[in-house]
Amino acid sequence: MAISIILPVLISFAVSAMAGPFVIRRMTELKASNTERKEGVSSHLKKAGTPTMGGIMILAGILVVCAIYIGLGYSKIVPVLVLTLGFGVIGFLDDYLKVAKHNSDGLLPWQKLLLQFAVTFLFWFLLDRAGVDLAMRIPFTGGKMWEIGFFAVPFLFIVVLATVNGVNFTDGIDGLAGTVTIVTAAFFLVSAALIRAGIEPVCGAVIGALMGFLIYNAFPAKIFMGDTGSLALGGFVAGAAYMLQMPLYILIVGFIYALELVSVVLQVTYFKATHGKRIFKMTPIHHHFELCGWSETRIVAIFTIITGLAALAAMIRL
Amino acid sequence: MAISIILPVLISFAVSAMAGPFVIRRMTELKASNTERKEGVSSHLKKAGTPTMGGIMILAGILVVCAIYIGLGYSKIVPVLVLTLGFGVIGFLDDYLKVAKHNSDGLLPWQKLLLQFAVTFLFWFLLDRAGVDLAMRIPFTGGKMWEIGFFAVPFLFIVVLATVNGVNFTDGIDGLAGTVTIVTAAFFLVSAALIRAGIEPVCGAVIGALMGFLIYNAFPAKIFMGDTGSLALGGFVAGAAYMLQMPLYILIVGFIYALELVSVVLQVTYFKATHGKRIFKMTPIHHHFELCGWSETRIVAIFTIITGLAALAAMIRL
Repeated sequence: MAISIILPVLISFAVSAMAGPFVIRRMTELKASNTERKEGVSSHLKKAGTPTMGGIMILAGILVVCAIYIGLGYSKIVPVLVLTLGFGVIGFLDDYLKVAKHNSDGLLPWQKLLLQFAVTFLFWFLLDRAGVDLAMRIPFTGGKMWEIGFFAVPFLFIVVLATVNGVNFTDGIDGLAGTVTIVTAAFFLVSAALIRAGIEPVCGAVIGALMGFLIYNAFPAKIFMGDTGSLALGGFVAGAAYMLQMPLYILIVGFIYALELVSVVLQVTYFKATHGKRIFKMTPIHHHFELCGWSETRIVAIFTIITGLAALAAMIRL
Repeated sequence: MAISIILPVLISFAVSAMAGPFVIRRMTELKASNTERKEGVSSHLKKAGTPTMGGIMILAGILVVCAIYIGLGYSKIVPVLVLTLGFGVIGFLDDYLKVAKHNSDGLLPWQKLLLQFAVTFLFWFLLDRAGVDLAMRIPFTGGKMWEIGFFAVPFLFIVVLATVNGVNFTDGIDGLAGTVTIVTAAFFLVSAALIRAGIEPVCGAVIGALMGFLIYNAFPAKIFMGDTGSLALGGFVAGAAYMLQMPLYILIVGFIYALELVSVVLQVTYFKATHGKRIFKMTPIHHHFELCGWSETRIVAIFTIITGLAALAAMIRL
């Protein structure tokens, strides 16, 4: 346990925490700071100027640990790392174009989608090479498998893209995506340890990296993770879930990601259908609660508690 | 795992969360609210009027779970419950006299000490009856025992009283004692599960009860736990540690409690020795960091991260 779980957390934490001051300084110099939308939550205007792309800290921690553990023979973490890193790079490009280069469009939608498909395709290839098939564990059944044949492939693409976008939408309040994802990663860590799946080090690395990141990102945040961080974390969640044959569990432990995603989809659909009416005051849904008067810190606490309860529930008859 | 771990967390959470609105209303009616010291941290003055004794919510969750699980035959949780509840009642009496009755002295020091000794004595008796001896696991040795003979008894009293007071000092910032103690309880839960000690349900109950409590106690707090809560949690930590023969681990996983306690002892000693000089701007030490400009939420994040790292370190060669 010390080698496969504890050490990855500690190493990743150390890398991420130590990278913090450097990344914050560099991003501030680059003026890689957030431009808060004027039509957004007004209390967020004071966040303008906070540097972003802190996801670099998270990626640094994950990368160092994965390099060591792949060297030690933990080859199962390769597909998870590729999905994490691949989406991290997409997020980085988007952040960099948007913010550092003041090109406010970032990647064009078709560029982004193409890159996301390419990374997911590579992941699917590596998953297959690692000998993991696409049958899925059914929650609460003690490990019964569900085989959906040909549909498993489009389903994989949908799950990966939905998860990544869900995590991306969850990022928007100091500490929210980080704290929720620590709990999610802990769930996959425990699952991996129980199944002896061999991906424990990358799960531990995500936990440690986020602990290091949260030193600076907890309310009031000194840096945001940016798409660099949130897309990478989305890639990790989907990647770990697929390596464990647990994509169906994302709907349980990742309830918050799903809720954020669904809130946006519903809002946009309804807005278009009614020519301008809204269901929520603002989406992603954490902004709705903010506008209802909840403080940022209360939203983080409650969303994290929900994720913790969901993770526990998901462990019933794992 | 579902029955011994997951269910206790979920039940306790439900009880504590549902008790919340009732306890908050009742305590507000009773005017059981905090009087912030004028010489304290000035940003805390706005906390005046926040009801306290939220520890009742925590105790309710723990009690319900323990009643069920003792009924199911988990007799090992009895000593832990007695120490938790015993100190909770002492805290309750103190809170009640201080706040509800506006008798600002609360229990007299000798009354408090006598009650604490009595509860600890009862715990020692129950520990002995449960067949747990006072030999202690030495951290990082893979379970080697340390036997200190006669000294084990005074040591037990010192450990219990120091732990309870350490947790009590840790309480003083929204969410701090609760969040740190969730991590500590998770450490003892994992340890208990590995050792098959039979106290998993009470550890789970503490986690669930604190999750329920934190819904209301996260910054900005709607209720404080009071001594009702912090003394009970201290009793739990010491009780769980002794049932697992792990009192030495309190110094690792409970590093924050120790730090808070030591900061107060050093400050008072130095102040007396120098006739008025201070080491820290204010103690317990979290107030020192506040006066150094850290936000409450950052202190909670960092103290919790430290506890998480310490808990992981303590699991090396458990």
